[in-house]
Amino acid sequence: MTTPRFDGRAVDQLREVRITRDWLDYAEGSVLVEFGRTRVLCAASLSEGVPRWMKGSGNGWVTGEYAMLPRATHTRSSRESVKGKVGGRTHEISRLVGRSLRAVVDMTKLGENTLQLDCDVLQADGGTRTAAITGAYVAMADAIDTGRRRGWIPAAVDPLTDSVSAVSVGIVDGRPVLDLPYEEDSQAETDMNVVMTGSGRFVEVQGTAEGQPFDRGELGSLLDLAQKGCAELAALQRDALSAPRRAQR
Amino acid sequence: MTTPRFDGRAVDQLREVRITRDWLDYAEGSVLVEFGRTRVLCAASLSEGVPRWMKGSGNGWVTGEYAMLPRATHTRSSRESVKGKVGGRTHEISRLVGRSLRAVVDMTKLGENTLQLDCDVLQADGGTRTAAITGAYVAMADAIDTGRRRGWIPAAVDPLTDSVSAVSVGIVDGRPVLDLPYEEDSQAETDMNVVMTGSGRFVEVQGTAEGQPFDRGELGSLLDLAQKGCAELAALQRDALSAPRRAQR
Amino acid sequence: MTTPRFDGRAVDQLREVRITRDWLDYAEGSVLVEFGRTRVLCAASLSEGVPRWMKGSGNGWVTGEYAMLPRATHTRSSRESVKGKVGGRTHEISRLVGRSLRAVVDMTKLGENTLQLDCDVLQADGGTRTAAITGAYVAMADAIDTGRRRGWIPAAVDPLTDSVSAVSVGIVDGRPVLDLPYEEDSQAETDMNVVMTGSGRFVEVQGTAEGQPFDRGELGSLLDLAQKGCAELAALQRDALSAPRRAQR
Amino acid sequence: MTTPRFDGRAVDQLREVRITRDWLDYAEGSVLVEFGRTRVLCAASLSEGVPRWMKGSGNGWVTGEYAMLPRATHTRSSRESVKGKVGGRTHEISRLVGRSLRAVVDMTKLGENTLQLDCDVLQADGGTRTAAITGAYVAMADAIDTGRRRGWIPAAVDPLTDSVSAVSVGIVDGRPVLDLPYEEDSQAETDMNVVMTGSGRFVEVQGTAEGQPFDRGELGSLLDLAQKGCAELAALQRDALSAPRRAQR
Amino acid sequence: MTTPRFDGRAVDQLREVRITRDWLDYAEGSVLVEFGRTRVLCAASLSEGVPRWMKGSGNGWVTGEYAMLPRATHTRSSRESVKGKVGGRTHEISRLVGRSLRAVVDMTKLGENTLQLDCDVLQADGGTRTAAITGAYVAMADAIDTGRRRGWIPAAVDPLTDSVSAVSVGIVDGRPVLDLPYEEDSQAETDMNVVMTGSGRFVEVQGTAEGQPFDRGELGSLLDLAQKGCAELAALQRDALSAPRRAQR
Amino acid sequence: MTTPRFDGRAVDQLREVRITRDWLDYAEGSVLVEFGRTRVLCAASLSEGVPRWMKGSGNGWVTGEYAMLPRATHTRSSRESVKGKVGGRTHEISRLVGRSLRAVVDMTKLGENTLQLDCDVLQADGGTRTAAITGAYVAMADAIDTGRRRGWIPAAVDPLTDSVSAVSVGIVDGRPVLDLPYEEDSQAETDMNVVMTGSGRFVEVQGTAEGQPFDRGELGSLLDLAQKGCAELAALQRDALSAPRRAQR
Repeated sequence: MTTPRFDGRAVDQLREVRITRDWLDYAEGSVLVEFGRTRVLCAASLSEGVPRWMKGSGNGWVTGEYAMLPRATHTRSSRESVKGKVGGRTHEISRLVGRSLRAVVDMTKLGENTLQLDCDVLQADGGTRTAAITGAYVAMADAIDTGRRRGWIPAAVDPLTDSVSAVSVGIVDGRPVLDLPYEEDSQAETDMNVVMTGSGRFVEVQGTAEGQPFDRGELGSLLDLAQKGCAELAALQRDALSAPRRAQR
Repeated sequence: MTTPRFDGRAVDQLREVRITRDWLDYAEGSVLVEFGRTRVLCAASLSEGVPRWMKGSGNGWVTGEYAMLPRATHTRSSRESVKGKVGGRTHEISRLVGRSLRAVVDMTKLGENTLQLDCDVLQADGGTRTAAITGAYVAMADAIDTGRRRGWIPAAVDPLTDSVSAVSVGIVDGRPVLDLPYEEDSQAETDMNVVMTGSGRFVEVQGTAEGQPFDRGELGSLLDLAQKGCAELAALQRDALSAPRRAQR
Repeated sequence: MTTPRFDGRAVDQLREVRITRDWLDYAEGSVLVEFGRTRVLCAASLSEGVPRWMKGSGNGWVTGEYAMLPRATHTRSSRESVKGKVGGRTHEISRLVGRSLRAVVDMTKLGENTLQLDCDVLQADGGTRTAAITGAYVAMADAIDTGRRRGWIPAAVDPLTDSVSAVSVGIVDGRPVLDLPYEEDSQAETDMNVVMTGSGRFVEVQGTAEGQPFDRGELGSLLDLAQKGCAELAALQRDALSAPRRAQR
Repeated sequence: MTTPRFDGRAVDQLREVRITRDWLDYAEGSVLVEFGRTRVLCAASLSEGVPRWMKGSGNGWVTGEYAMLPRATHTRSSRESVKGKVGGRTHEISRLVGRSLRAVVDMTKLGENTLQLDCDVLQADGGTRTAAITGAYVAMADAIDTGRRRGWIPAAVDPLTDSVSAVSVGIVDGRPVLDLPYEEDSQAETDMNVVMTGSGRFVEVQGTAEGQPFDRGELGSLLDLAQKGCAELAALQRDALSAPRRAQR
Repeated sequence: MTTPRFDGRAVDQLREVRITRDWLDYAEGSVLVEFGRTRVLCAASLSEGVPRWMKGSGNGWVTGEYAMLPRATHTRSSRESVKGKVGGRTHEISRLVGRSLRAVVDMTKLGENTLQLDCDVLQADGGTRTAAITGAYVAMADAIDTGRRRGWIPAAVDPLTDSVSAVSVGIVDGRPVLDLPYEEDSQAETDMNVVMTGSGRFVEVQGTAEGQPFDRGELGSLLDLAQKGCAELAALQRDALSAPRRAQR
Repeated sequence: MTTPRFDGRAVDQLREVRITRDWLDYAEGSVLVEFGRTRVLCAASLSEGVPRWMKGSGNGWVTGEYAMLPRATHTRSSRESVKGKVGGRTHEISRLVGRSLRAVVDMTKLGENTLQLDCDVLQADGGTRTAAITGAYVAMADAIDTGRRRGWIPAAVDPLTDSVSAVSVGIVDGRPVLDLPYEEDSQAETDMNVVMTGSGRFVEVQGTAEGQPFDRGELGSLLDLAQKGCAELAALQRDALSAPRRAQR
């Protein structure tokens, strides 16, 4: 029998996940998503028009921006707006968020509209990018719903082709574990973020050896854990979306 | 008898104000403050050291940063970090927050420590800067409490000399009103932000004629309203701070 | 009888004010304004077109930029262009200059033209923003005159609805004084900038407690002084504008 | 029997790889690496000192920067220095290069020295990041050799723990292929970059579904191809390094 | 006999040059220099310390910054601080000013002090860089005088080894002319800026063919004119410096 | 008889110059130019359209950008894209490259097309700007040839009016020398860059006294050397261009 993790979870157990829809009053869709103490506010803005290079194509666009409040972390970080530039990590995750969500949207059914997903980390305890993607999907689904109800997006066809969620996995103290909080993440030998569709296919696999490089067997175990975690997150997303929305303004 | 305002309030009535302490797990002090639908997350970070020009003085420092999430507003705004510079309005309010809080702290009693107040607007419905100052004071008081309990700040003496809160007043449809939401703010002829101490003295008075310049009599009526509003906010701050804190980590 | 101030002035006395019109050869209007040793070059540029968000409205626009030469001050400051960003104080005053001047212009009578007011501080001895506004008004009036003579602005109607000037007041050594040079400004407990129209109404009131917060009575005394100072400045502006202009190129 | 690819290669065949050592005269190590028409200049600079946060640790540091010349591509791109900021993709690859090389260096054996790997793409035909990593390893090995010969790095122990190389794999027209040039890359459904050590372990796995998400079986096939490709690249690196160096200045 | 130029001058005649010393109250040296309608404010700041790379050398440093006010020109230009970067032309002239002044200062006699020359163009009518250098020399001489009187610079030895001035020459309508105003400059086939010492040696020669490339003979004629102009400017500098300074504060 | 230079050359002798055409596969014209160990990659991109201020003129445009790889030099320099701004020297040389090439192109014969010359220094041993201009001319000639063959530029008329090359000259140890490598450049009293047409006229003359200012006689000797060097470079350019081009893709 395996030793439980420092927070009492089994190796293949997610943290408590909470998805609060319509946390904001003005955004077309919005979600406060929590993976344990990690707390990300995901706002989906639907606006007319697309980037210049897409004009006239008849297709829509989906893009993401990720950022962290200065005091999301144990000690305060400088504000990127004040430093005057966006850091590499922020850039990288923003791009990942956009790509992940585009994987489940049929752009030809959006009309020439843009869905902008803003994922702002209010508190960070590991797994912020995976929480962001998981929450952003729900916010996006609500924004598409708003858009169809308001006639901005043709109501006849659903642009969503699938759902998408993400989870982190890693090797800590020599054993593969699911959904790492900061304490585990900071000592993981290998760290992997996996983005999957609700139908169980891979959108992104990003594995990094922080310490010892990993072998093919370990890679397999990590993928197994990620598949289990993403399937559970997909179910939680379905549950969240099955409830009626708060009255919209 | 006067006609009520569009949201049913009397001309001298505040919106519903909610102050939730310790909304974050890591910050030394933190508050989610709500003035109606305006929602600002205020995090107070206490750290060792002071800016270079103060080193060796034995005194502490208090500073503020204000920012708005892209989708805090009715339509999305660009992210300042992505634009690569902080806008004039943001700069101006950050400076105001810092000055307002410094007015009630005795720097000689802080030790060479810095209190950084981050006020991030999660949702904006007018009065974001006044909500920010009002919430930041409570977050700061908690951070000072944390600092004294941890021995970072000498426990013997309280660096706080008073409390501080802020409210907006304005002339809308020819009559002075208190605590303007966006709908009133956008059509006000005159707009004034007033920062006051708990003991009823002025820290800042910033009045601007958006349309018709105002006369001395109107200025007097606005100051009367602001004094009433700030006194009520000071009482709400005292109430909030009188409750025991959530168990700290 | 009150003690005179360090420079011999009475508490309610302005410094020597000089307004030199058409100091530049190319600008549509220009003024070198001096409040004692404070020296600000105000250039008013009138150009066709308005910012994008106003196009097609038929209205004009007035905007301001304030800056300080590196060696305007006792010790040299870094150049903002070299640092690559405009500081908070500069931003704040630029916005104030624009708002103050817009308060006395009827935009519907400008045509789709922009008046850009550049206020560059050549030497700073306190009160640079108030000198800037006071001088910029005169430069703007001349630029409007140029525009009407050249047919850029319809000559039939005057877009100016009033004049505007500004002065600083403050509490120094416990007593309210008018028009503070650097030496007084740096030790003032309260510092207030007041912008008023020629007809005696308020456009901006910005009071800040630098040390001890101030009470309602002190606020009243400061406003009295400011009203007296602005009235005198308005008279000086009228005198300056009553002289014939230098031959224009 | 499978159809050959558009350039005649088999699905599991690398492009022609050329590694030219000491292409520069001043760098401690340098390589011009070519994967077909992709051409990357890798310069390894060894300098005394480490970033501030590492000072006094006794350990060294390895970091990377990746960039592309404006006309490396079919049509010219803007220069990032002129745009004033580094793009997200550039940032992301720079970070990948640094992480990949750090995976095979024992920092405790470098002394407090920094190895800076500059990978500048002179011509881009797909796989620039994998060519960069593969070439940078050889340049780094030479720079370490230079450092040991000059006594900057203790000669007794070799800081290199393994070699590292990288290759791209992807699914094009439904079949997994190795080492994609631009023409294939631009139409791949899935694109994966894999970084491996000479001993056959994984340092990074970054797979992205550009079109259709991929399943576990496809992921397996891609990893098989990558393992084959990296093993061949490791052999080419060994060959290159086994030759004597050009006389050093 | 030659036709006079559009402004009545002979081909080898300078515009009216005015040098007003101590135009500012705080700068250690300052000059308002006018070449016809070109008007440049030159401020020399003497401060303790040198750039990092010179620390401990015992030598001083001289550096320059050149900038133009937005409405120095016929139509307004954008402010470089607002654009967030210094343009190529500004950079280039700032470097030229610094180099030119360093040519006549013996750094070993300055002590570890920095002379910063700020040349701000208040009005531009051609020849701004040459006016800037010519005025900056006088401001620098005064700042050195201030420094020696205050004991910041050893009084025993004069760090100045010579004087320096600059003038523009060019080929307009096929004939070489001296000191070009904007109207000539904008139609010159060749434009040359020459910086010379008071003793008649060259510090900088920068000739550019704007239209037709020039031959060796034309180059000779331009140099003749420049030598004549610089000699006259050197005499004007001597005259200006021979007068007693305004009482210093 | 004169002593040879440190590298054995006569005072009026160029370093070995190599011009390799079509070094890149995609650029319309490209050259790797070498002046001894100085190595510059010059890419000429021909694209439709001109800068906004030229639209509708029917004329074309030629512009240049110069940059240096971080490890082109003996010790590594920071990357300008990472610093977020282009340095003064880089700006200055980019402008020089553009101006020099424009001197030999008849814009009216280009059509509304832009020729962008990117000169990236791969290795720097003095004279990088002169090598850049000399190589860029050849790359530009090839790009024009490509443009005419593809019908982008009217084939009937040649937009080239002459050739252009550049060389550095300087006074080292009291004697004028041609084509200075870094070792001489760093100790030169005077440094001059001269740009000339194939027909022997001057496009740019930029001489700077680094140490002792120079007299008219020395200036003459330097110009003699530069004329000899540029004539030889023009011949080498002609030779290079007389060979048939590599098969184009």
